[in-house]
Amino acid sequence: MEKFDVHILGCGSALPTMRHLATSQVVNVREKLFMVDCGEGTQVQLRRSRLGFGRLNHIFISHLHGDHCFGLIGLISTFGMLERTADLHIYSHPDLQHLLAPQLDFFCKGMPYKVVFHPFNPCERTVIYDDRSVSVETIPLCHRIPTCGFLFREKPTPNHIRRDMIDFYQIPTYMRNRIKNGEDYVTEDGTVVPNSRLTVPSAPPRAYAYCSDTLYQPKMVGQIEGVDLLFHEATFASSELARARKTFHSTASQAAQIARDAKVKRLVIGHFSARYDDERALLEEAAAVFPETILASENLTLSL
Amino acid sequence: MEKFDVHILGCGSALPTMRHLATSQVVNVREKLFMVDCGEGTQVQLRRSRLGFGRLNHIFISHLHGDHCFGLIGLISTFGMLERTADLHIYSHPDLQHLLAPQLDFFCKGMPYKVVFHPFNPCERTVIYDDRSVSVETIPLCHRIPTCGFLFREKPTPNHIRRDMIDFYQIPTYMRNRIKNGEDYVTEDGTVVPNSRLTVPSAPPRAYAYCSDTLYQPKMVGQIEGVDLLFHEATFASSELARARKTFHSTASQAAQIARDAKVKRLVIGHFSARYDDERALLEEAAAVFPETILASENLTLSL
Repeated sequence: MEKFDVHILGCGSALPTMRHLATSQVVNVREKLFMVDCGEGTQVQLRRSRLGFGRLNHIFISHLHGDHCFGLIGLISTFGMLERTADLHIYSHPDLQHLLAPQLDFFCKGMPYKVVFHPFNPCERTVIYDDRSVSVETIPLCHRIPTCGFLFREKPTPNHIRRDMIDFYQIPTYMRNRIKNGEDYVTEDGTVVPNSRLTVPSAPPRAYAYCSDTLYQPKMVGQIEGVDLLFHEATFASSELARARKTFHSTASQAAQIARDAKVKRLVIGHFSARYDDERALLEEAAAVFPETILASENLTLSL
Repeated sequence: MEKFDVHILGCGSALPTMRHLATSQVVNVREKLFMVDCGEGTQVQLRRSRLGFGRLNHIFISHLHGDHCFGLIGLISTFGMLERTADLHIYSHPDLQHLLAPQLDFFCKGMPYKVVFHPFNPCERTVIYDDRSVSVETIPLCHRIPTCGFLFREKPTPNHIRRDMIDFYQIPTYMRNRIKNGEDYVTEDGTVVPNSRLTVPSAPPRAYAYCSDTLYQPKMVGQIEGVDLLFHEATFASSELARARKTFHSTASQAAQIARDAKVKRLVIGHFSARYDDERALLEEAAAVFPETILASENLTLSL
């Protein structure tokens, strides 16, 4: 099966600690790398991940709080020193460009590559990226400032052609891709062999949803229904529900309720408050509602 | 003896690696903390050092390359979340204020403390900080942009009063501070006891010089003569002398020549190029010229 992995580079919240770094992830879809958020320290974590810098061309920023974007200028600047030439595309709220522009002018003069900004409105559901392997759609969230999550949907792959049928009907090479894409095969004597006899269906396309930071937001359920993996913030335990509401964050139990109601396959929780020395209590709380829950941690890789 | 420590938080160069983080140090003079440079990731290193955030009120920035200042916005923002109330003073080239202002406005609105900028001209030798314990003077350096080092000079401490003389002459409490500060003592019968008989001199005031980034610059020698500890950048080995010159950096051997010519007590070298997997060759090169050389490393503390 082709690669669809999520690499957690940092899963702390606003205050980075020695346990958890600020938020960043890399999504690897068929060897193309997509970054989601870029907190301080991301470039070192990216190096640690050994994913390589060269295949990363797209960065999606969920919202303009420092713990989700302070690592951008360092990463951009390092790419310049490494003689990158490919454009780097940054998708975010329009304000980011205005904030970064003076820093880029000052610190990154004469870089051998271009930073291309793609502003979007995080409050609207929109497809902000699309290629032949994957599309990325915003998931409007409810936080103190305009914020969205991101839904990565893999494109369907062609069916697998059956080796035994190729041999049996002696199907010529030029026909094989057409059959993979759904055509029937007509033999020399005019017999139509239906496609379903010639192929086996490929694995169904996979999906990953990233939802951070947000208040418990049941209306996202419809948009993320059945995804293979959901990352949902779980900044607090239920004992801090009042604080979660006040700061527009979720509890571990609320994250699990979303996962359960959206019938996702697996849930990974993160964006842990610095107050927790140990997140096992958060895991237990979530798992009580949705057993297929995993705790995020730095350098964790999850394969879909 | 009162505290005068240098804590290395990061000693890499432009490209942070898994071995070395971007530049930052904390100088602890009598329990007041002074930060020198603030590369990306400094706030986490400061946490790791367990020095505490509360006693840090002054940050000195040597020059405006990203690896020396990209950590500022994260640190400032974290101080705000920790409900800091004391002013934070930043000493730097005037451009820093213009670069940080839009970020402070956007990300740090409503912080409970003030950031106070103290612009200075790095190309001139100036005292930029002075209190009753320490003064900080710029050391003009030669780099691709205006850059300076910093010379921390401890103020002399009062002499120590001799316990046996207090008892012998039954010196009253109110006189003791005056004697520590150099006065003679006159007994009830009018005998003058000279200060030198009553006290022993305190340790001579100590000094720390920080010099990074710079081309080999022999004219700094006069200014840093005899300091107890010199941090000097040693980005390259002598085999890369041409590259050192081209990028306005120093070799390990040049750093040691400065230390030797300035007759400093100890030299610590840092700002290592990412090309070195192991800095022992740099240490050997420097120690051949100046034996009292130490390699910087993250989380190293040097006491003067």
